[in-house]
Amino acid sequence: MEKNKSGIYLAIPEAVVVGNGEFPSHPFPLSVLDQAPCVVCCDGGANALVESGRLPDWIVGDGDSLSEENRIRFQDRIHRIPDQETNDQTKAVSFLASQGIRRIAILGATGKREDHTLGNISLLMEYQQMGLEVVMLTDYGFFTPAADTQTFAGFPHQQVSVFNFDAVQLRSEGLKYPIYDFRYWWQGTLNEVEGDSFRIMAKGHYLVYRTYEAKE
Amino acid sequence: MEKNKSGIYLAIPEAVVVGNGEFPSHPFPLSVLDQAPCVVCCDGGANALVESGRLPDWIVGDGDSLSEENRIRFQDRIHRIPDQETNDQTKAVSFLASQGIRRIAILGATGKREDHTLGNISLLMEYQQMGLEVVMLTDYGFFTPAADTQTFAGFPHQQVSVFNFDAVQLRSEGLKYPIYDFRYWWQGTLNEVEGDSFRIMAKGHYLVYRTYEAKE
Repeated sequence: MEKNKSGIYLAIPEAVVVGNGEFPSHPFPLSVLDQAPCVVCCDGGANALVESGRLPDWIVGDGDSLSEENRIRFQDRIHRIPDQETNDQTKAVSFLASQGIRRIAILGATGKREDHTLGNISLLMEYQQMGLEVVMLTDYGFFTPAADTQTFAGFPHQQVSVFNFDAVQLRSEGLKYPIYDFRYWWQGTLNEVEGDSFRIMAKGHYLVYRTYEAKE
Repeated sequence: MEKNKSGIYLAIPEAVVVGNGEFPSHPFPLSVLDQAPCVVCCDGGANALVESGRLPDWIVGDGDSLSEENRIRFQDRIHRIPDQETNDQTKAVSFLASQGIRRIAILGATGKREDHTLGNISLLMEYQQMGLEVVMLTDYGFFTPAADTQTFAGFPHQQVSVFNFDAVQLRSEGLKYPIYDFRYWWQGTLNEVEGDSFRIMAKGHYLVYRTYEAKE
């Protein structure tokens, strides 16, 4: 576990997946990207990665949003999966899982079409059920899928939102506003960490969002 | 009903709410903003509106993200609501509802912190239950809360996603992939309109997202 300047604890992932949303501009996701031993791009996500001066180890998808130039340049590292039932993010994650990789950070999965953003975020819950340890990093914060009772690292005034998927008996320690068995997305938003960690007690699955910066 | 160049039918709203997310840059939400008879900003949302050369009719919120300059300049049109239980978007919508306004478009509610985006989107379902006719416009598409069986305007190859809240017996006509009683957010994404309209049959509440542009 490594603590960055903002007080974020995050294990260095075994691989990073770069989505086809907005390429990260915040230094934290970029530092995670630059430390990753393996970078897999979802199709057109490779265009922005290459433009930023970095190179993909793999490009997964059906190749329809990859530039002609990158399609030729990286033809030896394109892994085509034509399945219409899953999106490119899931194809990239499943490809890594098939290589035995478990700890995965997902970047660039938000910030463009909002329906893609919602879909990509909710898929984190599926990856967790596949036995993977995933985190999604955006320019503002990070999403972690969670189940049952867990303790989370934090720092004072870090903003936290909890999205309930199928959890019951939701309770919290160390959050400014105690959580409860909420049902709607907005009900678990805009909470705040009080100390250096917080604990969520629950039975079932939920998603935790934490910001990089404390509230001003 | 008015059809814009992209083939989007949208009734001109009685008022527009400008959130504190990313200010729109797409011409469609901007044209809706410029035709609106009344513009209400969520607190700091007024800073971006003023920067774009436009003026708010009202500013609703607790004033904590409004610039000092705008706080002084618009002091006669700031409506302070200190309630900690609702967010600024809901304060603005409730304020409009209290003035008898029913048809509301929400802009600038997405594009920054993703937990705010998720919260703001889900609140559309609550506004619908308040008897309001709301739509949320982003730079990529628009969200409409819906209930039971409804027909929606569209155009060929328009991208559609359906997010299920509590609906059962979900079926569709006129969409490329027939919908079903899905449970997870991603399951209803990446669908496509076949003709000039589509129909969703259901019992209960769901959210429809449509893009402005057809898929290339």
